[in-house]
Amino acid sequence: MSDLPKFVEIKEEGPREGFQIEKGPISTARKVEFINALSKTGLKTIQTVSFVNPKKVPAMADAEDVVAGMTLEPGVTYTGLWLNDQGYERAKATGKLSIKPGVSLCASEAFSIRNTNRNRAQQIEDANKAAAKFKSEGIEITTAGVSAAFGCNFEGDIPVSKVVDLCGQAISIAADHGHTVKRFSMLDTMGWATPQHIKRAVGAVRDKYPDLELSLHLHDTRGLGLANAYAGLEMGVAHYDACVAGLGGCPFAGNKAAAGNVCTEDLVFMCEEMGIETGLDLDTLTECALLAEDVVGHPLPGSVMKGGTLKAMREKLAQA
Amino acid sequence: MSDLPKFVEIKEEGPREGFQIEKGPISTARKVEFINALSKTGLKTIQTVSFVNPKKVPAMADAEDVVAGMTLEPGVTYTGLWLNDQGYERAKATGKLSIKPGVSLCASEAFSIRNTNRNRAQQIEDANKAAAKFKSEGIEITTAGVSAAFGCNFEGDIPVSKVVDLCGQAISIAADHGHTVKRFSMLDTMGWATPQHIKRAVGAVRDKYPDLELSLHLHDTRGLGLANAYAGLEMGVAHYDACVAGLGGCPFAGNKAAAGNVCTEDLVFMCEEMGIETGLDLDTLTECALLAEDVVGHPLPGSVMKGGTLKAMREKLAQA
Repeated sequence: MSDLPKFVEIKEEGPREGFQIEKGPISTARKVEFINALSKTGLKTIQTVSFVNPKKVPAMADAEDVVAGMTLEPGVTYTGLWLNDQGYERAKATGKLSIKPGVSLCASEAFSIRNTNRNRAQQIEDANKAAAKFKSEGIEITTAGVSAAFGCNFEGDIPVSKVVDLCGQAISIAADHGHTVKRFSMLDTMGWATPQHIKRAVGAVRDKYPDLELSLHLHDTRGLGLANAYAGLEMGVAHYDACVAGLGGCPFAGNKAAAGNVCTEDLVFMCEEMGIETGLDLDTLTECALLAEDVVGHPLPGSVMKGGTLKAMREKLAQA
Repeated sequence: MSDLPKFVEIKEEGPREGFQIEKGPISTARKVEFINALSKTGLKTIQTVSFVNPKKVPAMADAEDVVAGMTLEPGVTYTGLWLNDQGYERAKATGKLSIKPGVSLCASEAFSIRNTNRNRAQQIEDANKAAAKFKSEGIEITTAGVSAAFGCNFEGDIPVSKVVDLCGQAISIAADHGHTVKRFSMLDTMGWATPQHIKRAVGAVRDKYPDLELSLHLHDTRGLGLANAYAGLEMGVAHYDACVAGLGGCPFAGNKAAAGNVCTEDLVFMCEEMGIETGLDLDTLTECALLAEDVVGHPLPGSVMKGGTLKAMREKLAQA
C-alpha cells in the first residue's frame, strides 16, 4: 500500500522556533526548565536557541544564558541555530552545543533577502566560505537544506526542479571543500506544501540523488502539517523536524496569525498508531506540551495534548 | 502515484455538529445568519440542526425556529439529524428540510447505548422498522453509515472486519424492505482513525462492495483529520462531511477538550491546491469560518482562516 519507514527520527525545534516568535518576555529560567523537560522524552536532538541579532529577535537575546543553564542529558545532542559567522562563534563559545553545520540555501531569493539580508550570489558565497572554514577547523559538513522549498509568501510557488537544482548545488559546494552531504532537508518554511507536492518533491530529489537521506521541516500554517508528514512517510522519509505543542512560526514570514511547526507529539502519535517507532515517550512529550502552554502563557495548537492519547484510552478501558 | 478523485463533494455539518456542543446560549437569529451565509458558498448540502431531546441537548431546543428562519437557497439541500421517530416527525413537520434517511448502525454497542440508549439488537430492530416505515411513505433509502467505525472511547479499537460486516448488514436491512444502498459512510466519531486505518477500512469495504460510493465523516480530535482525509483521497473517496472552522465534536464522546470535525475550508484548501475540484468558494467559506468564531464567541481550530489562502498570496504577489 505504501512504503512507510519502520523508524522515524524527530528532531525537536520547539525551544528555538517557539520562543523566537513570542512577544511576551519569557524568563531564561523557564526556557531552561522546558529544555530540561524535553531532554527526558527520548528526543535525541534538541535545537535550543538561535544566535541571531538581539535587535531583530529580542526573544533570543539570552541565548548564551539559556545554554549555560541547561542540564545536558547523556545521549542527547543539543544544537543552536546561527545564520552568520558571528552567530557561529557565539554557538561555539558556549562549549555545550554540538556544532553540526550544513549547507543552507533558500529557494526564494526574496525571502533570503528579507530573512538574512543575502541575495542568491551572496548565499552561495557564504556557503562556500563556511564550507572552507569548517574544513579548516576539522568539522565535517554532512547535511544540506533548502528553505522555502515549497513556496514563499514573497516569491510565490517554487517549482520542484528548482529544489532539485539547489540540492545539487549544495552537494557541489560541500564537495568542492571536501565534505560529503548525506542528508538533505526540504523546509516548508511558510506552509505552502500539500501532500502531493511533498510526494513530487521527495520523488524528484530521490530520483536524482538516490543515496541521500531525506528530511522534512514542515509548518502547519494552513493545517496541512500532518497530512504533509504522512505524505512524507508514504515516500519513506524517516527524518522530521517538529515542535512540541506546535510551537513556532517564523517572525519574518509575514503572517502573524500563522500556526507554528508541525506538532511533535501529534506526529509521534500518528507514527506510533501506524506502527512506526519513534523512540519517544508520548506521555512525557504531552506533559512537555502542556508545560509549553504554561511557559508561553497562551493556548498552543497541538491536538493530542487536548484530545488525549489512545494508549491512555485503551488502558482505562482495560482497567474497567 | 495515487488515485485522487477529480471532484470531491463536501457535506457541511457545522451548524448541527458545532452548535450542539456549545455551552453558551447562541440566539436563533445568529444560527440562522450562519446557515444563510453557508448557503452562498457553493455548498450543495447543509445539515442545519438536530431534532433531539432538548433536555439532553439544550442547544438544539430551538431546532424548529432555526429551520423556520432559514432562507432556502435554490440548489442547496438542507437536512436535519434525527435519532428516533419523534425526531423524524419533527424534521418532517418543518416542511423545509430534505428527508434523506439512511440506515445507521454503530460499530460500538457501548457508545450506542450511551449516545442513543439502544443496544445492538435494538439498533437492528430500529433500522428495520425505519426501513419499513420509509418504504410505506414512499421515501427511498439510498445511504447507510456506521458510526464509531475506527474506534470508541467506551469500547476501544474497532476491527475493520466489523465495519465490513455492519456495511453488509445495513445493505441487507435496506434490501429487505426494497431499498438500495448506494453510498456507505464510515464515521470516525471519536477520532480514533489514522491514515493507514482509513486506507485499510476503505480498501476492505471496497473489496467486498465495489459498487458502493464511499464517504468519510472525520473528527480532528487528535490532529489527524486532514491526514485521514488525504488518505481517503488517495483511495479515491470523493465524499466527505466537514464543518466550517472545525466546529463540532460530540457531546457524548466523553472528551470535553477534543477538537471538532475536520475543517471544511482547510479540506477545500487541500483539495483545490492539489487540483481536486470542490465547487466551493474558499473565500466565502473562510468568511463563514470567521463568522462562526464570532457566533460561538471563542476561537475555533480552523487553520486557513488564520493562515490565509495561497490564492490570496498569489494575487498579492501578482499585483506587486
